[in-house]
Formats: sequence, structure tokens, C-alpha cells
Amino acid sequence: MADNIRLSADEKAVIILDQTLLPGKTEYLRLTTASEMREAIVTLQVRGAPAIGIFAAYALYVLARSIPARADFWGTLKELRSYLGSSRPTAVNLTHALDRMVGAARKAGRNRDNALKALGEECRRIQHEDVAVCRSIAEYALTLLKDNQGIMTYCNAGPLATSRYGTALGGIFLGFERGYNFKVYCCETRPLMQGARLTAYELIEGGIDTTLICDNMASMVMSEGEIQTCVVGCDRVAANGDTANKIGTSMIAVLAKYYKIPFYVFCPTSTIDMKCKTGTDIIIETRSGKEIHTGYFRERVAPADVKTFNPAFDVTPAELITAIVTERGICRPPYTDSLKAVMKGK
Amino acid sequence: MADNIRLSADEKAVIILDQTLLPGKTEYLRLTTASEMREAIVTLQVRGAPAIGIFAAYALYVLARSIPARADFWGTLKELRSYLGSSRPTAVNLTHALDRMVGAARKAGRNRDNALKALGEECRRIQHEDVAVCRSIAEYALTLLKDNQGIMTYCNAGPLATSRYGTALGGIFLGFERGYNFKVYCCETRPLMQGARLTAYELIEGGIDTTLICDNMASMVMSEGEIQTCVVGCDRVAANGDTANKIGTSMIAVLAKYYKIPFYVFCPTSTIDMKCKTGTDIIIETRSGKEIHTGYFRERVAPADVKTFNPAFDVTPAELITAIVTERGICRPPYTDSLKAVMKGK
Repeated sequence: MADNIRLSADEKAVIILDQTLLPGKTEYLRLTTASEMREAIVTLQVRGAPAIGIFAAYALYVLARSIPARADFWGTLKELRSYLGSSRPTAVNLTHALDRMVGAARKAGRNRDNALKALGEECRRIQHEDVAVCRSIAEYALTLLKDNQGIMTYCNAGPLATSRYGTALGGIFLGFERGYNFKVYCCETRPLMQGARLTAYELIEGGIDTTLICDNMASMVMSEGEIQTCVVGCDRVAANGDTANKIGTSMIAVLAKYYKIPFYVFCPTSTIDMKCKTGTDIIIETRSGKEIHTGYFRERVAPADVKTFNPAFDVTPAELITAIVTERGICRPPYTDSLKAVMKGK
Repeated sequence: MADNIRLSADEKAVIILDQTLLPGKTEYLRLTTASEMREAIVTLQVRGAPAIGIFAAYALYVLARSIPARADFWGTLKELRSYLGSSRPTAVNLTHALDRMVGAARKAGRNRDNALKALGEECRRIQHEDVAVCRSIAEYALTLLKDNQGIMTYCNAGPLATSRYGTALGGIFLGFERGYNFKVYCCETRPLMQGARLTAYELIEGGIDTTLICDNMASMVMSEGEIQTCVVGCDRVAANGDTANKIGTSMIAVLAKYYKIPFYVFCPTSTIDMKCKTGTDIIIETRSGKEIHTGYFRERVAPADVKTFNPAFDVTPAELITAIVTERGICRPPYTDSLKAVMKGK
């Protein structure tokens, strides 16, 4: 499989794997305009907190290259950053990557060519760092997993959500390479089915023993003793350890606590937002009800006049999280201390 | 709306509302053969523990009427009972209704005409009793609900699951008649969408303020303080209070406990199985994985070679249930005592 996010050879486009068509179709999109790029994030053609960051960095570089020579380069760059940054509010990686890009350009001085050179280097650096970060998370993750375990995962925190390896799935893939047998239960993740469409696809491609269940079956599978570990990715971690991730994650965490199963969050330190004190400070994106009652269905599955509520994320309280695994090590409660320690010098 | 289960005027057919087509189409089916009738239960054209019992009783009556005069009436009746009874293993009401029918026929003596007369009376009695039972459950239910509450319900335990009123939804409808305002959150109930297709439909038809969510959003909605009460129906209650209901019910119960919200089970005493000591004695039906990855979708939403696990029910442990509400009163823990008391003289 080619990289799911990359620059075109002429650096005039960002090329992405359209994740909305998986697993039925493997189709790459060549995106050249700001509106196409923003739309790719909004419609989840590209998704996963780290992947959105990488994509936005490449997007800003490509768009910066196309700013006309006579235009106000810095003013336009700022506008592009705001425009791309407004696409999804919950994942911190998006803002983080865009801030890094603009920071790198400014550091290169007022000269447009130097700024473009710096932007080109920075977006590549963001992607390379992601690969190294995921590899490191996978190594730490593997110290928490045991051979022959049943593992439950939720939504998609595999290679498609990052640039390679993945966060929550990294330990599983690395363990598999080293001869571990895992039995992975993957929750479908309503309403957009990232678990069924993406995680099941990645796990099976990777040769892992994978069973797909509906989200509401997690309790029963845990009660039957099939699960020894839960692993999830995340979109933003607050300074106290409260964690925003795909809607339903907090359900898995509550169930894990009831059934006495460890619940691990996997995250690059770029996902930790020390400015955000607790989960209540995290803005939760709500999306159209159409995703619930129509979405992937043949026809509408609910009465025409029913109200809906479609939050894209929820916040798992820190008290339900056994450990937060970063590329710099494993944080344990109390998270106010352990997250501060891991973020030191960043 | 006409009754969703009824005898045809000539008593040669059972007429049912095809629940698999709701809410898009309101279509009634005229069923005359044993295989059509069994298939109606298997494919969920008729569903809901009490409704299945009523339907099976009418079905057995219609089929008994068509037993040829020269055939072995009692032997055939017994075969028909087994055939219909084998359609779904979890709900006790099915066996219960069929046993009542055969018992009534036997009591009427060896004469075929008398037996048929008794069968005709008994199936009508089962339906009439259901109406009275649901009405009584609704009255008890309403003592547990307060004006302006947010109520979460799961799967479908409304009129479509019974013959009228419903079990878990009865209190909501009765309260609405008496001027209560409720805000009901209805979980879609994967994979067959009974919550979206049937419960949302019934609640809206009844004028109730209804919001549809995906099952995995229940935790978030509870955490936001939107829910003060959870109400569910059930398919079988064991003597210790362990309760089998639609897959995912135990998830709602675990969440309710974590968020300190009362969790009520509504059930006619016909659903209580005193011969069944605990939940581990309840047989859980597993169904085809096709329901998970294909089902109502436009196209398959998961890779072709993924394994699936599709249990139709789960067991909610008694310790998570605040009260079990029957037509004879409200049972509280310890259920071994309170269920015994309510079943006395039955």
C-alpha cells in the first residue's frame, strides 16, 4: 500500500487515500485547492488525529507555493492556516501542525523563497516524526500486551489514522511481527463505521485474527471473558488525563472498569494539550443527523421527523484510564504529574 | 393503526404488520402456512417477546384448524408446537404461550371440535391478557417516572413488541396522556435498528419528544446529565433477577450504574422463568454476521474475510437492575425473594 498521505512529485497537490470509500474501493485523490483540502478533512476522506495534522501541513505547503507573487504572502498564509484549522475543532494535532508550519516559515525570515523552503522541510519533518513516534509508542505498547490476549479496540487508530504503524494498533502489529498471537475484537464504531471499514481492513491486511462486532456487543464480549486489554487512540488529552476520542470510547472505558479490564490510551505527545486543564475545556464537534439515519444505509432507517444528536467525540474521564502511552514513555495516574513530566522540554 | 397481530375474519390466517419494513413501509402480511409463520418469527417480521407469544398462539390455532380430519390431530398439534417453538430460543413467552394453548386444548377433552374451540378462546385470551398486563405495568411504571425527566430506552418495548401499550414504553405513553413532559432518548439498537425503526416511530406517532442516538452515544448523553431514568423490556428473567434482553442492554445497565441513574426492567410475569436459576442458564441466540456487515447497508461495510460475532441478546446481571416492574407490582432486590413473591399463585 502506498503512503496514505503524500506530496505529488511536482509539489502542486497533496495525494490522499479516500478513506470514505474503504474497504470497497481503494481510490487516491489529488487535491490542489484550499476548499478541496478543507472538505477532505470535513468529510473524513482523511481522518485520524495524527493523519489530519500531517495532511494539513502538506496542504499548507502546497497552497503557500501557489500564492501569487504579487499577493500578500504572510497575510494569505495566515488566512489559509485559519481556513484549514477551522475544519474540525476537537483534534489538537491539526492546530498544532499548522502552528508549527507557520512558525517554521516565520523563523526562515521575511523572504518568500526561504519561507517556502522552510515550509517544505517542516511538513516532511512532521510526517517523518510521526513514523518515529508511532514506532516508539508501539514498543512501549508491547510491554503492556501479553501473548494470546484478547484485545478490544475502538474506532481506528491504525496506520490509516497516522502515516504508518498507527498508535493503538502499533503494539498489536509489532507483537505480531515478533510471534505473539492476539485475538482482536474490533467495534464497528457508529455512525461512520471506522472500526468495520478501516480497522478491520488494516488488521486483516496485517494478518491479525480479527472479529468484528457492533459497539453494543462490547459489554457481552467482555462479560464472557474474551477481553484482557482495551486499546484506543485519542484526539486530545487534557492536562489532567481526561481524553477526547471517537464517540463511544467512554462507553468502552466504563465497561472495562466494570469488568476489571485495563484500558489504555495511545497518543503521540502532540495530542496532549497542557493548555487544556480538563475534559470540560475540550470542544466537542457535533455532526449532521444524516450520518445516523441515512449515512451508509440503503434508505433512511428512522422516521422523517425524529430529532437526532450526533456528537463525533466523547470525553473519557481520567479515572477510567489505566495508562496513557506516549512515544516518550508510559504515563500512569495521577496524570497531572505524569503528563507534566512527559511533556517537560517539549 | 390496526392491531399489529390479529386473526383474519375467516380464521384461516394470522395477519401481521411486517416490522422489517418499518418505518418506510406499512405492510400487512397474511400468513397461512406453518413455514411462513415460523419464518415470520425467525426473520423478525414479528418481534418482541410478548408479541411473539401472542402471534405463536394465533398461529397454532390457525394451523390446528387446518389439520385434515383424517390426520392424527394431537400428534400434529404437538409437532406444530415444536416447530413454531424452535424459531427463537431466548424469549420464554414463545414456549409459554404454546404450552398454554396445548394445555387448553387438552383440558377441553379428546374431541377435536372442542379442542379447536378451546384453542380459539385461549389465543384471544392471551392477547386480551397482554393488553391488561401492559396497562397495569404502565400504571406501576408511572409511579417511577417524574415530570420533565430525560428517559433513555433501548431496542423496542412499545406497542409493536406487545399487542398494545407496550411494556417499557407504557409508562411514557400513560404519563404523556396525563400531561407529563418527557424527553426520550432512543438508542438505535444495532444491528437491526429496532430503536431507530420501531421505537422512534412509535414514540413520535405518540407525540413524545424523541431524540435518536447511536448506541455508542449513550455514555456521552448520560455524562451530560440528560438522563434521569433508563427503561427497557426483556425476553427472559431468571429467578435471581438476571435479565436477558436485546444485545446491548447490559451496556446501558453498566453505564447507568456508573452515572448513578436508575435502570428499570419492565416485564409481564409471563417473561419470568422461575425454572431458570440464573442468567447463565439462558440460551443466547446468535445470528448471521450478515446482519452486522451488510444488513440495512447499501453495500458491505467490512472486509470480505472478517470474522463476526452476532449475539442477539445479552444478560444484564441482577446487581445492575434497580427494579423489575411487572403487572403485579414492582420487584426490588433481592430478586430471589421479590420475584418468588410476585409469582406466587401463578
